Amino acid sequence: MTAALTSWSDGPAKRAIVDFVTSATEDGPRFVPAADRIATFDNDGTLWVEQPMPPQFDFVFRKWAAEAKADPSLAAQQPYKAIIEKDAAFFEGVATQDPEIVATLLEAFARSWAGTTPDEFDAQVHEWVTTVKQPKLGVPYVELVYQPMLELFEFLSAHEFRVFVCSGGGRDFMRAFAEKAWGIPKEHVIGSAAAYTYADGRIVRSDQLLGGLDLGPGKPEHIFAQTGRLPAFAGGNADVDIEMLACAGFALLVNHDDAEREFAYTKAAEKSLATAEQLGWTVVSMKNDWATVFRTDGAA
Amino acid sequence: MTAALTSWSDGPAKRAIVDFVTSATEDGPRFVPAADRIATFDNDGTLWVEQPMPPQFDFVFRKWAAEAKADPSLAAQQPYKAIIEKDAAFFEGVATQDPEIVATLLEAFARSWAGTTPDEFDAQVHEWVTTVKQPKLGVPYVELVYQPMLELFEFLSAHEFRVFVCSGGGRDFMRAFAEKAWGIPKEHVIGSAAAYTYADGRIVRSDQLLGGLDLGPGKPEHIFAQTGRLPAFAGGNADVDIEMLACAGFALLVNHDDAEREFAYTKAAEKSLATAEQLGWTVVSMKNDWATVFRTDGAA
Repeated sequence: MTAALTSWSDGPAKRAIVDFVTSATEDGPRFVPAADRIATFDNDGTLWVEQPMPPQFDFVFRKWAAEAKADPSLAAQQPYKAIIEKDAAFFEGVATQDPEIVATLLEAFARSWAGTTPDEFDAQVHEWVTTVKQPKLGVPYVELVYQPMLELFEFLSAHEFRVFVCSGGGRDFMRAFAEKAWGIPKEHVIGSAAAYTYADGRIVRSDQLLGGLDLGPGKPEHIFAQTGRLPAFAGGNADVDIEMLACAGFALLVNHDDAEREFAYTKAAEKSLATAEQLGWTVVSMKNDWATVFRTDGAA
Repeated sequence: MTAALTSWSDGPAKRAIVDFVTSATEDGPRFVPAADRIATFDNDGTLWVEQPMPPQFDFVFRKWAAEAKADPSLAAQQPYKAIIEKDAAFFEGVATQDPEIVATLLEAFARSWAGTTPDEFDAQVHEWVTTVKQPKLGVPYVELVYQPMLELFEFLSAHEFRVFVCSGGGRDFMRAFAEKAWGIPKEHVIGSAAAYTYADGRIVRSDQLLGGLDLGPGKPEHIFAQTGRLPAFAGGNADVDIEMLACAGFALLVNHDDAEREFAYTKAAEKSLATAEQLGWTVVSMKNDWATVFRTDGAA
């Protein structure tokens, strides 16, 4: 099965993954019953590029810019004001997934889409996925999914792991492209989410959040709510992933150290890198461990 | 594949099921893409006996009786008082899943188990499953799962449907036995649920509900939250299932008309039976459509 991880360089990260996964499926002290083989992955910075900011914000900010254009009085309000004025502190908070800024955004996000049906929302995300290009790399965002992670999904599935994505970002945003971009069914996508109301035969988005944000301790909480378990395998890249990684049987931390092919930064990941060293998590050096970075099958 | 439904008598219900499921997988106007093949089933009265009351209440009332024994001051409070005094109106509300009584119970339920870990709770349910017998039929509750529904799960799975259980009862109560009793993974069990808190490496049950009750309109809401879709196929047996059945591509309503082998009643199902006639749902007569009622593999 190792052959499937062809975009991974032979090195300590690949060896640790293969060792854990094969041991989990074989009789012995490290066996994991098939029912418990839940694998969970953060999205932004773990499955795709999160610089200069997590892609969902591109989608959202375009919507808000259009709203402010249609109703100029909005320009005096947050978050419209920060977006129009390109407020640096605000965008840094976005880039590092500062929980307070993410909460403000998700509340505004919930308000903007209240009353939307799933089909309407899916169509908006689909339009964005297929037309908008990442500003620094000039290709659609879904082309910036990491090939080694797609191979890891296949490798885990081949060993009877059920692969879930668990992100602080919007559950329904990710579900709109999960099946095509990742080969993962919608029900395996966990994220921060609006509550929906059913009436007159239709599901409609409300302006309320359902449960807490899927960040930090919210990640194990959301994973347990969705799956009834904590993960046997988890992958992340940032401080907001620490609790998810800490509760997993095997923890993988992606280190963005490849300024040439992607980006080099440790901001909002300092604590997770320190924890990885302390707890013996497997750190992936994008530069050294990944022979290929971006998906090779073109757009999803 | 029809052969798998051996406990179903040849008749209109079986024909309608086979017709829908096979059409869903074949090219033609009634094809359902594999991704959309979500099937959802109520539990109490649909998958197992719910008379004289849904089995989870037996589990809960035993706990509360033990609590009241340990602390007699509780006997003056609800729901302890109603249980100790065997209040008829209260038990009728329980039997018919009256939303107000279910809500009161679930709140008390949440309080009683606040601070419990998933392992502790699973152990309590396991103890109940393996030791307690249904009062009228004298066998453990899990032996009272309906064999035709287990065969239907297999039939749907063989046609690439993902089968979910969606009950007003407790999500974690059902998850404790779902894999053994139904062959359904925990992540395919949807129900009313407590919120959990993650701290110090542990998931612990809080005293709050997560989202609304999984009854009536709450069923499509919970199904959408868990799966990102509304069901292609749904099965239920009561008025609290109407919304779930109405939003499904194919709706199956179990009619308890078999006083000899199970129970005959329409209470709390009158409206669903009328709606079935109006909307052309497939009604299952337990008496006529099921050659066998209870599972034939013994205890799960």
